[in-house]
Amino acid sequence: MTTQYYTATSIDGFIADADNSLDWLLQFGDGSGDTYSAFIAEVGAIVMGSTTYEWVLEHHVNADADHPRPWMYEQPTWVFSSRELPGVEGADIRFVRGDVVAVHATMTEAAHGKNIWIVGGGELAGQFHDHGLLDELILGVAPIALGAGAPLLPRVISHPPMRLTDVRQDGPFALLTYAVRG
Amino acid sequence: MTTQYYTATSIDGFIADADNSLDWLLQFGDGSGDTYSAFIAEVGAIVMGSTTYEWVLEHHVNADADHPRPWMYEQPTWVFSSRELPGVEGADIRFVRGDVVAVHATMTEAAHGKNIWIVGGGELAGQFHDHGLLDELILGVAPIALGAGAPLLPRVISHPPMRLTDVRQDGPFALLTYAVRG
Repeated sequence: MTTQYYTATSIDGFIADADNSLDWLLQFGDGSGDTYSAFIAEVGAIVMGSTTYEWVLEHHVNADADHPRPWMYEQPTWVFSSRELPGVEGADIRFVRGDVVAVHATMTEAAHGKNIWIVGGGELAGQFHDHGLLDELILGVAPIALGAGAPLLPRVISHPPMRLTDVRQDGPFALLTYAVRG
Repeated sequence: MTTQYYTATSIDGFIADADNSLDWLLQFGDGSGDTYSAFIAEVGAIVMGSTTYEWVLEHHVNADADHPRPWMYEQPTWVFSSRELPGVEGADIRFVRGDVVAVHATMTEAAHGKNIWIVGGGELAGQFHDHGLLDELILGVAPIALGAGAPLLPRVISHPPMRLTDVRQDGPFALLTYAVRG
């Protein structure tokens, strides 16, 4: 069981632009290629922050108000939020707040040996890292500079460094995998 | 002749940390490996900003005040600065200010068909890009997150995107090469 933060990023470490848009990313398609399929098949539990969740609601689920689309994930999904947020019909979404440690324990149980995917944002991934719970970082680096926006991972991880475990080209992206711990 | 911005960066797009230090980078050695040797052999002219230049003076040339070390480059080097800065004995260093376009023309002539290397910082590389003069971006991505610091390339380059032309592992680094134009 690995706790993974898998995200697309610009070369300069932003996961959304200064207007909280992903247009820079979506020009390359919806991200549903072989790399994602292989990744998601090994995921047993998902967690995201409220900004990420609300982005998905607005741009995917409710993009067409008259014809809402179903939730994308079969896995149980935890959403960290200090606010009341709407759920999605037919989806297993669990709203939580506070410390990530207890939630991680619950997710580990629910994942039945499969991986935990931290979808984003960077601050939530950072909180898992703060508690030594982030095992792996997988970056789909888009051939894009954004200059400003939502930070990939607002933490210092330098001594010891991470360990680059895989490097490959994935279409227009560079796919970089890092072991974060040990 | 290619105008290249070749630099080390953290995964989150910083080329120096919040204290303007490169300690996070230097833990991996002084960067004088095969990749650098092959790169520098094709360079005919070098340009950097004043912050980069002063870093080199302090940490390399004058690191030991009693025994100054020689300048590292045989190629003529242009330093952009609005201030008066000291030169280095025996080095071909040309201090300039203002617009990058005229300097680029002079450098192109001096390079005799070889490449132009923009050492940094990000703002200077951005100014070359603003004038359509940045051809290639080569990133040595260190397995490090910094969270804050000097930005890699404070510009938006997204529509059209760059083109990833090479991806490889280079020791602990991922080496990513992008065609910036066309």
